[in-house]
Amino acid sequence: MDVTAKIAEFVAAAKYEQLPPKAIGTAKVALRDCLGVALAGSREEDARICAALARQEQAGEEASAIGQGFKTSALNAALANGTAAHAMDFDHSFTLMGQPTAPIIPAAISLGEALGVGGRKMIEAYAVGYEVTAKLVHSLRDSAHDGWHAPSSVGVFGATAACAKLLGLQASAVEMALGIAASMAGGIVANFGTMTKPLHVGLGARNGVLAAKLAAAGYTANGKAIESGFGFYKVLHPNTPVDEKPIEELGRSYALLSDGIRIKPYPCGGLTHQVIDSVLEFRSKHGLTAEQVERIDVDVAKHTFERIVFKVPQTGIQGKFCMPYLVARALIDGKISLHAFTETAVREPSILKFAERVQMNLDNNLKKTDPGGRPCRVTVRMKSGQILLREAQHAKGGPEFPMSEDELRGKFTECAREALGESATKEALTMIEGFEELADVRALTNIIRGSI
Amino acid sequence: MDVTAKIAEFVAAAKYEQLPPKAIGTAKVALRDCLGVALAGSREEDARICAALARQEQAGEEASAIGQGFKTSALNAALANGTAAHAMDFDHSFTLMGQPTAPIIPAAISLGEALGVGGRKMIEAYAVGYEVTAKLVHSLRDSAHDGWHAPSSVGVFGATAACAKLLGLQASAVEMALGIAASMAGGIVANFGTMTKPLHVGLGARNGVLAAKLAAAGYTANGKAIESGFGFYKVLHPNTPVDEKPIEELGRSYALLSDGIRIKPYPCGGLTHQVIDSVLEFRSKHGLTAEQVERIDVDVAKHTFERIVFKVPQTGIQGKFCMPYLVARALIDGKISLHAFTETAVREPSILKFAERVQMNLDNNLKKTDPGGRPCRVTVRMKSGQILLREAQHAKGGPEFPMSEDELRGKFTECAREALGESATKEALTMIEGFEELADVRALTNIIRGSI
Repeated sequence: MDVTAKIAEFVAAAKYEQLPPKAIGTAKVALRDCLGVALAGSREEDARICAALARQEQAGEEASAIGQGFKTSALNAALANGTAAHAMDFDHSFTLMGQPTAPIIPAAISLGEALGVGGRKMIEAYAVGYEVTAKLVHSLRDSAHDGWHAPSSVGVFGATAACAKLLGLQASAVEMALGIAASMAGGIVANFGTMTKPLHVGLGARNGVLAAKLAAAGYTANGKAIESGFGFYKVLHPNTPVDEKPIEELGRSYALLSDGIRIKPYPCGGLTHQVIDSVLEFRSKHGLTAEQVERIDVDVAKHTFERIVFKVPQTGIQGKFCMPYLVARALIDGKISLHAFTETAVREPSILKFAERVQMNLDNNLKKTDPGGRPCRVTVRMKSGQILLREAQHAKGGPEFPMSEDELRGKFTECAREALGESATKEALTMIEGFEELADVRALTNIIRGSI
Repeated sequence: MDVTAKIAEFVAAAKYEQLPPKAIGTAKVALRDCLGVALAGSREEDARICAALARQEQAGEEASAIGQGFKTSALNAALANGTAAHAMDFDHSFTLMGQPTAPIIPAAISLGEALGVGGRKMIEAYAVGYEVTAKLVHSLRDSAHDGWHAPSSVGVFGATAACAKLLGLQASAVEMALGIAASMAGGIVANFGTMTKPLHVGLGARNGVLAAKLAAAGYTANGKAIESGFGFYKVLHPNTPVDEKPIEELGRSYALLSDGIRIKPYPCGGLTHQVIDSVLEFRSKHGLTAEQVERIDVDVAKHTFERIVFKVPQTGIQGKFCMPYLVARALIDGKISLHAFTETAVREPSILKFAERVQMNLDNNLKKTDPGGRPCRVTVRMKSGQILLREAQHAKGGPEFPMSEDELRGKFTECAREALGESATKEALTMIEGFEELADVRALTNIIRGSI
């Protein structure tokens, strides 16, 4: 099958008017979540460094660095905005492998601002990018152990597709853009827990803008770069079987409907969320307090065990991937707040003392009930001898256990006001919720650029 | 072994004063060859598109786009200059896997110009970058079939090391730079024969500047990103054994001495060079003419057979990887000139007619005599019944069969004048040959920037 050509054809042919209304609704939820998280993320050290570097470039002022108060080129803005969108590990994921939206929206909003497109065009570009990412990820269903960070290695194709759509490229040029993108696919899991993890998303976003711009200028690549020998599938995933069926489904079925997005209620590793849900539930249903606990065992499957690797957090970022710390925070604070991951917070003695009672264990008998399941079991042994136990496959925030509209708006507001004032936060929220009526995306970017 | 740390330590400690004089000599030869080829390459469509994109960025004017007549940021200049350096496939290679210099010099000269460093500092940075690239490539000796284009996938570490050296980073920061670089390593062989192949080198160069600048600003990465689980070696080369011995040799032995560089006398695929040598030798020694020939058989080993894939060139770039075309050109023209790869030249009927008499065959019995050997056999069957036969392991331009100093200077001059006038070409040549005396590299970049 001509995978690259098939994707290119879908991208070139897609139209806002053909999108199912529910897909448009999910796209708007994704946009709100992504921009909120990027605004909060813009305060993080890694996002600030990328923004400072973009600023030093002194490039033409065509696109906003979100929350950073300045404009730069679309390429530089995409790098800064993509990094901000993933800086807190608070961005939404979906069924498999990583965060589909994080590289797409930063790429599309940066290029979209430079082009002055309207809200519908942006939703169309996002939906195209999301579908391309989702179908590619499904075609590589078993690649979770290949060591690539999917929002960068696959996400670059989503960002490229969205930007190609914004530039109105014909199918033959979209093929070239995808081929160029295949040579920029990268980002290794070894860098999890460091600033380079968010950078992966910034790179995916920027590379998407670059691939689309080069193709628009007549740049050439292999028109079968995804599927050919020495192409993306075989070079990046030599040991993973490829399933081409999801690619055939492009334009026929929508992953925005069948998979949807999984919004994170907590600003930390998604694989820790069912555990946090469990602890908060013990607390609210049973009135559990830290003083009552002798020990807590968290049993997880291999995928989680390999990624949530920190035992005692040395940095704020490590705290986001440290199960004992998160369990202690959830039980003692009754929430996981944005401010739990400062260098001071992760060293708070009372929290770390309690964290010693928490043990994460690998349990190879825990089984997924469906492809998106992340099985875990939390067992609380109380000093009284009582035992509390909860097993979960899915965390709050996904289609199985959704967040309410109020919770979602609350998340945006809490995040956005980290970078914007109250009134700008409200104004941005209103604009995003009526996004399909927006004549020019610059009305929104002028607000979310913020001022410093 | 802590590979990343060992490399970082070497980079931080290296000093111009400790380089063997012969290594400095080779570095200067490499610099001259690379800049010459980049100047000629700056006329190619792919280099022009990258330069136009850099120009559109309207970035601060700190570094020259070589041959393009304008300045931009070091990051943008590195992208344009790296692409130009590989645009003609005329840049030098070394023992194994690709072109070590092509990403290093464009990165170092762009950042070096922005910093205003002198010639010695530039030679020091280049030598550091070359050694890092060479040792990494030797540590992955058997990876030629992994599908990565080494000047990008490994070259990014060389470019990063050179830029880290220019910025004077300490070992701990160099570790971070290398870790960031590991997440930007990429570039797939599927894009050979398209504009994206030269882009790989531009990306390697730009990514090197970016990784070093981020690390200088305090950006973090995994300090074992090359060797750890889910690190560079295991993610990009899961099926290739890694030999750490070459890494241990860093600072003890110099690949600039033991391997040296292999300069290309012909502006086309390096794997075709022994064949061209043979045809030119038949012509000069035996007075062979096209009219005398019934057929020519070119027997090659698998590596060459898989990469020199075009039978009849459809584009100029394909002509560079098309054995029958190249043999016809060499025999009829008596040389392979820069101008043999225009869209018109590769369609010239008399050349294509003769090319039909040339057949390239896979011969699995041809054996390498050493790691850098590229065995081939050329058999000319003349109408007279006479047979001319030549077997070769090495092409002209390498340490075994070097080009003369006159030939090397001639190559620079022929290349550079494609972009510069005669007097600027001469001036640049003199400056490069006295490079260690240059107080500020901007004296040279002001010339090779050219004007348009």
